[in-house]
Amino acid sequence: MKSLKLTCSCCGSKRAYQYEAKCSCGGTLLVTYDPEQVLQTMTKKGMFTREASMWRYHELLPIQDKRHIVSLGEGWTPLLYMKNLGEEIGLDRLWIKREEQNPTGSFKSRGFSAAVSILKERGVVRAAVPSNGNAASALAAYAARAGMESVVIVPMDCPGLIVAECEHYGAKTFRIDGYIHDAGRMLDEGAEAFQWTNVGTLREPGRVEGKKTMGLELAEQFDWSLPDVIVYPTGGGSGIIGMWKAFKELQTLGWITDPLPRLICVQEDGCDPIAQHFNRAQARSHDPQHIEPTSSPTGMRVPQPPDLPLLLRILRETNGAAVTVTSKEIRAAQNQLGLHGLSASPEGAATLAGCKQLVEAGNIHKKERVVLFNTSHAQKYVSHTANAPIVSSYAELKAHLLS
Amino acid sequence: MKSLKLTCSCCGSKRAYQYEAKCSCGGTLLVTYDPEQVLQTMTKKGMFTREASMWRYHELLPIQDKRHIVSLGEGWTPLLYMKNLGEEIGLDRLWIKREEQNPTGSFKSRGFSAAVSILKERGVVRAAVPSNGNAASALAAYAARAGMESVVIVPMDCPGLIVAECEHYGAKTFRIDGYIHDAGRMLDEGAEAFQWTNVGTLREPGRVEGKKTMGLELAEQFDWSLPDVIVYPTGGGSGIIGMWKAFKELQTLGWITDPLPRLICVQEDGCDPIAQHFNRAQARSHDPQHIEPTSSPTGMRVPQPPDLPLLLRILRETNGAAVTVTSKEIRAAQNQLGLHGLSASPEGAATLAGCKQLVEAGNIHKKERVVLFNTSHAQKYVSHTANAPIVSSYAELKAHLLS
Ligand SMILES: Cc1ncc(COP(=O)(O)O)c(C=O)c1O
Ligand SMILES: Cc1ncc(COP(=O)(O)O)c(C=O)c1O
Repeated sequence: MKSLKLTCSCCGSKRAYQYEAKCSCGGTLLVTYDPEQVLQTMTKKGMFTREASMWRYHELLPIQDKRHIVSLGEGWTPLLYMKNLGEEIGLDRLWIKREEQNPTGSFKSRGFSAAVSILKERGVVRAAVPSNGNAASALAAYAARAGMESVVIVPMDCPGLIVAECEHYGAKTFRIDGYIHDAGRMLDEGAEAFQWTNVGTLREPGRVEGKKTMGLELAEQFDWSLPDVIVYPTGGGSGIIGMWKAFKELQTLGWITDPLPRLICVQEDGCDPIAQHFNRAQARSHDPQHIEPTSSPTGMRVPQPPDLPLLLRILRETNGAAVTVTSKEIRAAQNQLGLHGLSASPEGAATLAGCKQLVEAGNIHKKERVVLFNTSHAQKYVSHTANAPIVSSYAELKAHLLS
Repeated sequence: MKSLKLTCSCCGSKRAYQYEAKCSCGGTLLVTYDPEQVLQTMTKKGMFTREASMWRYHELLPIQDKRHIVSLGEGWTPLLYMKNLGEEIGLDRLWIKREEQNPTGSFKSRGFSAAVSILKERGVVRAAVPSNGNAASALAAYAARAGMESVVIVPMDCPGLIVAECEHYGAKTFRIDGYIHDAGRMLDEGAEAFQWTNVGTLREPGRVEGKKTMGLELAEQFDWSLPDVIVYPTGGGSGIIGMWKAFKELQTLGWITDPLPRLICVQEDGCDPIAQHFNRAQARSHDPQHIEPTSSPTGMRVPQPPDLPLLLRILRETNGAAVTVTSKEIRAAQNQLGLHGLSASPEGAATLAGCKQLVEAGNIHKKERVVLFNTSHAQKYVSHTANAPIVSSYAELKAHLLS
């Protein structure tokens, strides 16, 4: 048995591992492992011979029995050195982590491979998620693989191909005229009646743990050193939280000694709560107002990140930054990446746009090692009309589900 | 220097390695390696620690200098055990090789990583390909990565998203009201004027060598044994030729002793020259007529495979088969795969449809180890209008290129 614990990222209190993610203080509970136990079977040298998937780090994932692992071939994605693109934007050492090569075409595969494995270990038969799209299709795929039911709700303007993907994997798929938090509320209303487990961002331990493997891989791909800067398209924030946690764990194991990379969150103009809060806090000005999004429907459009304080702390702690880019900059970056042979989603391209801003501002220097995360590919986002029913209340959702 | 040779797959004659693919006898020239030289650096034990890409087999790829390798992170794709799907169709041991997780969303990445690397080593600056779609977008991406120009021609009904992908990677992209062989002829007409290298199927050594890595990987993923049956969606046939070559090479190296898997070609009703020729030859009836395709625009729609005799020989030699499936069976198979969490292109799904036919016919048995190749994902094939210019003659193509 793995010796697992939960530690509150806010008040620091520790407790026995349970399936929960929120401390009474409001902080996010994160899984902690026993480093001595981990090191019994996980050795640096042994890593060379492990499988090319995120489950190469199974000692650092909260599954007790390997037979419960629900895998579709996720993780251990390529890290591509971008010499020519680097030259174009004034960087000597630029890499792109190709997360679009995951089974469901986005990095979300990782979180849901872990989350659905935990559900399977717990005997859960029905899972639900509020999502901007890629989390929904990832839940749908992993639930299908596990023989579980899934229910997903996405915004009405979610790219049609992603909606179709959810339906293709057999998820009960719904759309709402609202945002991811509205969808989340609707699912909470139905939790008792339908007995589904809500695996929304920071609602359970699996998704952060799965995304953590992006950080573990990066460290391993850099031969247990760390880059200077990581640029990440941020929405709910569990990718950033996961990678930060990964680096901390590797420090605890004694596997890395480098300082943590500067973590950079990129968001789109029209919905950039992280950038607004971080930059105004730095400027000691007033808190930003309630955000009414006007940005495009991507994974970065999350007006109410579930644990904003933790995100801001991570950015401060790593000397990071939060950058806002325009839709025009995103499109230009997509085109620029295309001409280097890469298909990038708006989110993935936003990291290039954000990186350029920071290079120009002198915040990222020519000689620094910089990694951009291409979290999904461009094809999914092309116009295609969705068919999934639109629901405007839990009552309507319920009627559909029971009909 | 690697000691490379060419051997004719038809008359068996050997010659020094050059950039050519056709013997004077009409047969296809295949690259041969010096097994003793290969084994100096490539050992079974050493494979454990190699990179998770097809370039782990660089000794068996015809590039002299590793610095010429043009890579986007291709190969070493997951091999997924499909327990539940196997049960549904009456097989105990069924796997799917997830080729859609390649950089350009299809197995074509492999062939073009090899082919474009060879072009780079030869100092070529402009490449062209006639294609049903995925080869075109793969050439476009790898040429972009290499800083090379690319020109691609695809059928007018090629899925719009694939056409858009080619343009996104910067290829000069054209469509014709015709088939892949018509596109090939048009490119040949322009070869002198535009000095492009035509990397069409079996026109050069790289693509077969790149696709060969599917076979090498499969053998390694099965711990240097081989499955009993491989089901592959076949168009031009270089995938089948490549895998057959891979197994032969592994036999020569002494790394496998298993008999070759039965290789099964699947095509769609309306354009199934391989199935027609193979099955009529078995029945000793007359040669099929000239094929006027009525099947859907997929990679399997190749009315004139460049080396049909070699394909038929491989099917006979391995006790294989050629199967025709309908578009209805393909759609049903796509849906069935979706409910197991997999996104399959029509070609990928055709392998499931073909496999079911053979299980029902008693040609594949319950206890046999069967591998299906999912060569691309479903999203690329969704309706989307293409914009690339339509050309109806070389003169028109030329006018566009010079304008
Ligand atoms: C492609 C893509 N990139 C980035 C994000 C944001 O990631 P996170 O929730 O980890 O902040 C999402 C979330 O939906 C996404 O789909
Ligand atoms: C997705 C897909 N599957 C299969 C094929 C056929 O492969 P081959 O040319 O190796 O016979 C193609 C070729 O275009 C393809 O794009």
